[in-house]
Amino acid sequence: MAITVVGSVAFDTIETPAGRRERCLGGAATYFSLAASYFTDVRVIAVVGEDFGRRQEAVFQERKIDTRGIEHMAGKSFFWEGSYLENLNEAKTHITDLNVFAAFEPKIPDVYRDSEFLFLANIDPILQRRVREAMPDVKLVAGDTMNYWIKDHRPALLEILKELDILLINDTETKMIAGNNNLVQAARAVMALGPKELVVKHGEYGATLFGEEAKTFRAPAIPLEEVVDPTGAGDSFAGGFFGYLASQPEQSPAAYRRAMFYGSVMGSFACERFGTERLQKLTREEIDERFNLFRELTHLA
Amino acid sequence: MAITVVGSVAFDTIETPAGRRERCLGGAATYFSLAASYFTDVRVIAVVGEDFGRRQEAVFQERKIDTRGIEHMAGKSFFWEGSYLENLNEAKTHITDLNVFAAFEPKIPDVYRDSEFLFLANIDPILQRRVREAMPDVKLVAGDTMNYWIKDHRPALLEILKELDILLINDTETKMIAGNNNLVQAARAVMALGPKELVVKHGEYGATLFGEEAKTFRAPAIPLEEVVDPTGAGDSFAGGFFGYLASQPEQSPAAYRRAMFYGSVMGSFACERFGTERLQKLTREEIDERFNLFRELTHLA
Repeated sequence: MAITVVGSVAFDTIETPAGRRERCLGGAATYFSLAASYFTDVRVIAVVGEDFGRRQEAVFQERKIDTRGIEHMAGKSFFWEGSYLENLNEAKTHITDLNVFAAFEPKIPDVYRDSEFLFLANIDPILQRRVREAMPDVKLVAGDTMNYWIKDHRPALLEILKELDILLINDTETKMIAGNNNLVQAARAVMALGPKELVVKHGEYGATLFGEEAKTFRAPAIPLEEVVDPTGAGDSFAGGFFGYLASQPEQSPAAYRRAMFYGSVMGSFACERFGTERLQKLTREEIDERFNLFRELTHLA
Repeated sequence: MAITVVGSVAFDTIETPAGRRERCLGGAATYFSLAASYFTDVRVIAVVGEDFGRRQEAVFQERKIDTRGIEHMAGKSFFWEGSYLENLNEAKTHITDLNVFAAFEPKIPDVYRDSEFLFLANIDPILQRRVREAMPDVKLVAGDTMNYWIKDHRPALLEILKELDILLINDTETKMIAGNNNLVQAARAVMALGPKELVVKHGEYGATLFGEEAKTFRAPAIPLEEVVDPTGAGDSFAGGFFGYLASQPEQSPAAYRRAMFYGSVMGSFACERFGTERLQKLTREEIDERFNLFRELTHLA
């Protein structure tokens, strides 16, 4: 079943201990879409500038991602520059140029309206809510957010949290929303604000699912020999997780558990090359091979 | 099969968000012994002062731990005072009084010499080596260390690493020994120094086993509702891990994997009360119940 995702499509300049890349294709909606595209149909809502051309468009098209919801505006696309020189787990942001993204008004193509799954990537919670309200018939809504919205846009954030079936955030964001340093207590407090399921991403240590549908569940991350570039790993986790869920006839507790593993799998692939490079050219066989490696990595005989 | 453990038996004054306790019974050998005692016979080598009396002795005796190797000296026992007020994952040390521990010369009772398993808890690597050499017939030797020995006693540490079958340390210690910030690369570098198996403890995120005998394996930690006191969690992990291994007829890859889970189980119990309180009064049923919860927590259908 199709997923519509709304979020950023951007250019990223990234420096890591493995090197530097100028203006890679990036953005949460990009990573999410590519990861989810291995499981189900994906439709993107975003805004780009004149620097987004055929080469970038082709990245989506090769994965059969519907780009009719990507609006083209005069000006430049969202640009981010960051580095991970000291700590691969945390980006140091050098430049954030919103550019055309500052005036983003999500427009939903009519052909997207039968999507049963909606993913609200990390954007202004007011826009997340607007998209959610414009698609009242979706079956399952998941979303992400970040410290900026948690700190300075709390009222709007609280409104959209009420509308979410699933929230995917990291440890720090969970504790920040709840104002509680114990993860289990914080998770419960966040879920009391709306989301029925909460996925807390722990970076290199995997992720924990707290929820109604599934009992608490932890998926490991694979210890990676070389982390080339962690940019987009969280969005790729979300894409693998939600993409797999959407591909299932039923969103059962067992499906949620497998989705957690697929999320971890896609997050680990994302780190292996700069930008979206690795996510563009996977096969479902490679994905399932790693899924089995993961299962093996953590299962008792 | 019996384990001999050499390490500290101490008094700890601990402050956490849950409260403060004065002079709890503590020390790496204490936590290790209590945790391991649920799986196999344990024999302790340590030194204590005149403040270690019948009440402390009784804690070991109730768990049938052999204390004939605990030497009593004039003076006070090792004393540590620390707090976890800002970060439950990292103790802030306020006082370390070595007291009688400064003159510790491990003496191995003859009745300990048929032990097939030896655990060298975190003490001076020169003493670790002396004990290891005095027990040449043990079947499996595991050990721990800490940043202090890694930074300032490297030559002695390198000597004992050559003698270890299993090293149990945390992420930071692994990266520090290797001088490499990538965990997988660092793990490989540490294993090249001697240990055939390396268990890297990730605190609240579980632990990873790198090794020859077992393929890389990750055991989760349980997300805890309330962490009362994390003191000794790592030593309790080691006790559960090595205690379980020692209880098995064969140290097969499957046994190593289950041992990782039992390590995580005992580490999680340790955090639930101040000091050794929780570890003193467990039952094997409670332990296996949590083991099954862990398995459930991370297993796919």
